[in-house]
Amino acid sequence: LTQTSASAIVISAEGWDTEAWSARVRAADPQRPVFVAPDVPDRAAVGYALVWKPPAGMLATFPNLRAIFSLGAGVDHLVFRDDLPAVPIVRVVNPDLTQRMTEWVTLQVLMHHRRQRAYDAQQRARRWRELETPAAADIRIGIMGLGVLGRDAAAVLSRLGYQVAGWRRGQGDVAGVRTYHGEAELDAFLGRTDILVSLLPLTAETRGLLAMPLFEKLAHDGALGGPVLINAGRGGSQVEADIVAALESRTLIGASLDVFEQEPLDAASPLWSREDTILTPHVAAWSDPAPLAEAIVTQIKAFEAGAPLTNTIDRAAGY
Amino acid sequence: LTQTSASAIVISAEGWDTEAWSARVRAADPQRPVFVAPDVPDRAAVGYALVWKPPAGMLATFPNLRAIFSLGAGVDHLVFRDDLPAVPIVRVVNPDLTQRMTEWVTLQVLMHHRRQRAYDAQQRARRWRELETPAAADIRIGIMGLGVLGRDAAAVLSRLGYQVAGWRRGQGDVAGVRTYHGEAELDAFLGRTDILVSLLPLTAETRGLLAMPLFEKLAHDGALGGPVLINAGRGGSQVEADIVAALESRTLIGASLDVFEQEPLDAASPLWSREDTILTPHVAAWSDPAPLAEAIVTQIKAFEAGAPLTNTIDRAAGY
Repeated sequence: LTQTSASAIVISAEGWDTEAWSARVRAADPQRPVFVAPDVPDRAAVGYALVWKPPAGMLATFPNLRAIFSLGAGVDHLVFRDDLPAVPIVRVVNPDLTQRMTEWVTLQVLMHHRRQRAYDAQQRARRWRELETPAAADIRIGIMGLGVLGRDAAAVLSRLGYQVAGWRRGQGDVAGVRTYHGEAELDAFLGRTDILVSLLPLTAETRGLLAMPLFEKLAHDGALGGPVLINAGRGGSQVEADIVAALESRTLIGASLDVFEQEPLDAASPLWSREDTILTPHVAAWSDPAPLAEAIVTQIKAFEAGAPLTNTIDRAAGY
Repeated sequence: LTQTSASAIVISAEGWDTEAWSARVRAADPQRPVFVAPDVPDRAAVGYALVWKPPAGMLATFPNLRAIFSLGAGVDHLVFRDDLPAVPIVRVVNPDLTQRMTEWVTLQVLMHHRRQRAYDAQQRARRWRELETPAAADIRIGIMGLGVLGRDAAAVLSRLGYQVAGWRRGQGDVAGVRTYHGEAELDAFLGRTDILVSLLPLTAETRGLLAMPLFEKLAHDGALGGPVLINAGRGGSQVEADIVAALESRTLIGASLDVFEQEPLDAASPLWSREDTILTPHVAAWSDPAPLAEAIVTQIKAFEAGAPLTNTIDRAAGY
């Protein structure tokens, strides 16, 4: 095998069901060899790595590697390390993943707005009582991160009648969404936001951003009686001790978290037992492996036929 | 006062906060007399009744009544009785009410699809575990009742990626929604439906319709592992004993109910304690009284200026 013809796939994804993944990839491309790390009988044959948090140094052991595919939407598990060969890193982006993230964000917004946890408690108590809820038009949602995921969630939430605005680090407006830009406009964005939805990538700027100083800048005079934090971006963006303190002091009145500083979330975390906080185990954009495996194989075949790789990441920007 | 000039409003709504309603109406039209039944010092002055389940015979005691406004979206509390004067009955329809119903239906669909009750249980148990969920594109939603509410819910659910179809008693298709018609196409509609959403009015045909024979006709081979019932129409359309039996036998795998045969739901109902069933106390389309009161007063003023009443009901059809 020469470097340009290495065509085998290696899968390395700590804590994932890698056998199921290899079966999906084999189903999508029966002719191509697929190895599951660390069991790789022919390292020189490997042209493509499908990874989630690969062990340090592992990817450098494949001399003919041509591209790395991140199996999750986040890529910070790859960009902040110096042990990777200098080949393109491709982020998995498919409509299914976007759709699932929008479902999760919409579900969480509606649960807080329509007081589902309070109705659940009333159901357990066999209690029949109406609870007042504001109109969607009186609730201001602010989305941090206006990539593919943020824009899709904004469109659905706008259709449901909410006042939706967005914040992004860089320039560029998004049709139909009042867009705030950069550090200079962050406080104005936070000050008009009742429900903050973070879909931010993890970068040097976003690490630890979702903390008490930011929560204090959110709108505290809104129709919900206080602000709500929803984070489905990256756990490294949030300071969980501050979230707990903000909920205790009613600086926040609720939260929905799909990502955590350490995953799995420690069983001792005080977040688990809070009625005002909805936790899910990093499944907001959980995707069936079948279409993802097919999308990756399709891209590999196009690449081998001469097309450029799409959705490659910018290592300098970090996303 | 002559019959055509009677302009006072009487409010009668058993179990509602009628003083809050009268304050809203007075705020919307400060010049107009507003009475709260049974305290009506001048019965001849009453031209308009704003009612929910008015006492038998009461409306006939206003000799100059010109129109009856139903304060809830359902009108079966009015059409199935013979003690009403022969004046138009107007149904309250406003965008806020439609939007709130769509919120509730969307929330319930997402809770079943995204297994929120299972994640809630895992949170209480401090358990971190991913649960598989199908793609929205693999879930077939069927909406019974394609009035204003049904069409709006269908539009949002389609945007979220679900396969949405609708069923209606009469003719007429709805843009973008595969529409089934009448008795002849009911079985075909049910047979392709994983999540059944009922927004039906209560009529002779719909009373007791949501029962075991219908549940057995739903799709049992779908991506959710079985069918789900969501009812925000009228409680009289459902047979709660059959819903419990269907959940026990897994003929249904889940339910969301906002309406009940008797309201409030009896504290002894076995539905309260079911993890697979989400109960809310007839609040799906709960609306702030302020915009509703304004909409009614606006319609009264237009009527007095010579415009026809809108959203009047057909007593023969029952809705």
